[in-house]
Amino acid sequence: LEKSKDKAVDLGRSIKKLGQDDPRRVIHSLKVGLAFTLVSLLYYVRPFYDSFGISGIWALMTVNFVFEFTVGATISKGLNRGFATFSAGALGVGAQHLACLFGEVGEPVVLGFLVFLLVGAATFTRFFPRIKARYDYGVLIFILTFSMVSVSGYRVEKLLELAQERLSTIVIGGATCIIVSIFLCPVWAGEDLHKLIFMHLEKLAVFLEGFGSEYFQSVNEDKAVISTGEKTFRLGYKSILTSNNMEESLANFARWEPGHGRFRFGHPWKQYLKIGALTRQCTYQIEALNGYLNSDLQAPPAFKKRIQEPCMKITLESSKALRMLGSDIKLMTEPSLASLHLCNSKVAVDNLKILLKTTSLEDAELLSIVPAATVASVLIQVVKHIEEIYEA
Amino acid sequence: LEKSKDKAVDLGRSIKKLGQDDPRRVIHSLKVGLAFTLVSLLYYVRPFYDSFGISGIWALMTVNFVFEFTVGATISKGLNRGFATFSAGALGVGAQHLACLFGEVGEPVVLGFLVFLLVGAATFTRFFPRIKARYDYGVLIFILTFSMVSVSGYRVEKLLELAQERLSTIVIGGATCIIVSIFLCPVWAGEDLHKLIFMHLEKLAVFLEGFGSEYFQSVNEDKAVISTGEKTFRLGYKSILTSNNMEESLANFARWEPGHGRFRFGHPWKQYLKIGALTRQCTYQIEALNGYLNSDLQAPPAFKKRIQEPCMKITLESSKALRMLGSDIKLMTEPSLASLHLCNSKVAVDNLKILLKTTSLEDAELLSIVPAATVASVLIQVVKHIEEIYEA
Repeated sequence: LEKSKDKAVDLGRSIKKLGQDDPRRVIHSLKVGLAFTLVSLLYYVRPFYDSFGISGIWALMTVNFVFEFTVGATISKGLNRGFATFSAGALGVGAQHLACLFGEVGEPVVLGFLVFLLVGAATFTRFFPRIKARYDYGVLIFILTFSMVSVSGYRVEKLLELAQERLSTIVIGGATCIIVSIFLCPVWAGEDLHKLIFMHLEKLAVFLEGFGSEYFQSVNEDKAVISTGEKTFRLGYKSILTSNNMEESLANFARWEPGHGRFRFGHPWKQYLKIGALTRQCTYQIEALNGYLNSDLQAPPAFKKRIQEPCMKITLESSKALRMLGSDIKLMTEPSLASLHLCNSKVAVDNLKILLKTTSLEDAELLSIVPAATVASVLIQVVKHIEEIYEA
Repeated sequence: LEKSKDKAVDLGRSIKKLGQDDPRRVIHSLKVGLAFTLVSLLYYVRPFYDSFGISGIWALMTVNFVFEFTVGATISKGLNRGFATFSAGALGVGAQHLACLFGEVGEPVVLGFLVFLLVGAATFTRFFPRIKARYDYGVLIFILTFSMVSVSGYRVEKLLELAQERLSTIVIGGATCIIVSIFLCPVWAGEDLHKLIFMHLEKLAVFLEGFGSEYFQSVNEDKAVISTGEKTFRLGYKSILTSNNMEESLANFARWEPGHGRFRFGHPWKQYLKIGALTRQCTYQIEALNGYLNSDLQAPPAFKKRIQEPCMKITLESSKALRMLGSDIKLMTEPSLASLHLCNSKVAVDNLKILLKTTSLEDAELLSIVPAATVASVLIQVVKHIEEIYEA
């Protein structure tokens, strides 16, 4: 009993955490509930029921599959569903008429063959990466509607009427979804993408700051004083490594969204993807850099101290530059101060190079220092790329 | 006209390519077509139609949403669908009976409230990462079925009979999917995962081989002779960087698959994920290494030549070790020769370290060489990790 009580408490805690991490999740759940309740009015209210009958379940089904977390996803699925149902319905009726020409016996054979052919072809199109990303749901609905209309046409008499009833309930369901998702605390995929991108830049900046001070701290102070609390900065950037799928799907959905807030319809979402990809490139370098923090190959303190100044400067300035770029993206202003910091860090890199050249290196255990500098310079190139691309 | 002809030719070519890249795609499309045709027999054959009526469309719907590319995905979705429909149907009937107690006027209000509550709660559970990964489809179907049963119960008389009819057609549809996907040229998620993992190790090995020879080739020969054809080895590993989602979903599906070929039910799929994650760690290092190939900071040839031997040895031996590990995974044998190569490469790393210590480094432009060595040693640590984990 104790155990199950503990489990219940744990569950309660994780539910609470889930809600607190992103309160929009709770709101979303309520919105979905609301949409379902609204659509079920089609059943409860007498005049609606009289005109639609049991086709009302199609509205429920539409809400179920179309309502998504972000506005963009909802609209994209709704439109996909609408168009797919319409075109597949028309094709299905056509197939039905065609099959009728083959007489009582031939009809099911021809229908079966047509279904086999079209379903196979449509399934194959789902393997095209472009279609998979944008119209996957549409193709799925197309297959379903086509096979349903053409097959049930064999038995049902008033096919056209039925199809019309269903189409209108689906439109009602889809419209309910889109309206509820836009007008009640909307969650915009575009805004999420925007936030994700500049959060990533900031995380990198935080890491660089932390890296500089932690790596050289061990020179100035005792090695043991590195507190574990400080080490959290190292984990922040890890999520960037695997965020590509999320970015892509958000960008896909953002394209469908109408203008909102500071974003127009047709905002250059692809730019975000480019920046995201470059940020990820940069993160791979950072990941390598992180390896040197834990490495047991540590340079001798004397040498570390010598290169400390330019290295610190590089990390600080490039982290400032990243921060600036992040806030430029956030506020959607032209990159301004970022280039200044970028220049500073480039100067620091040059200084480091000169320093390395002039220092007589009796001690060859550079294994841990030089990489850091190199990676920093690679990093700067990446930041430069970002700057070039960012024009918004 | 010319243009549209060109486009058609392009389209034809890309279709052909898609089919040739993985012929299982064509087979899968045909299988889906077949499953649809089989299920539509419920309509065409008189005795079936007499017992199921228009509930046959539920079989079509099930096939449409359940049939997936891999066996594991199909089974997982089929079971999800079955259980969700059953439990939600039972709950829906219960809700309907409960609401009946509140009289003519109260019934729709209570029903609406119950739908709102349960749908909201179920939608919220979809945000739990674990549920999202494994039971997302089940929850979706649960919501749909519950709302459909409880809402339409308000109007339809023979609710239980209807629910039973639907459940049985859904079971028929699901069973058709599972049978067709298992017995006709099955595509096993587990096998794909297995293949993916050892392919990744091999790609890394190919890169390391290529890296060694290309990086030091420029010392021995003219710089200009690096042919572009050779550079393809560099791109092979890029796909590993972003494969985490694919690996996870494959592993999720693989858990559902019955024993097949050399895999038992309950094969340690999680091990594959661990190896995959370590491989990715390793790839991040490789990505950093790749940066030095293009870098304009090149070490002076004299120095490169000096460290060439141990570096080449490291890359060769660790690439051999990776290859061995890959083939060990492929054949599911105990890692054997891999550890030998691993030892060799460790010796080479030690040699390199000694060499670096003894060489008097007048020239400080190590920027490009030392990182290579360091990364190689990090790489070896990663390979060691892989070895530790792999016990299958």
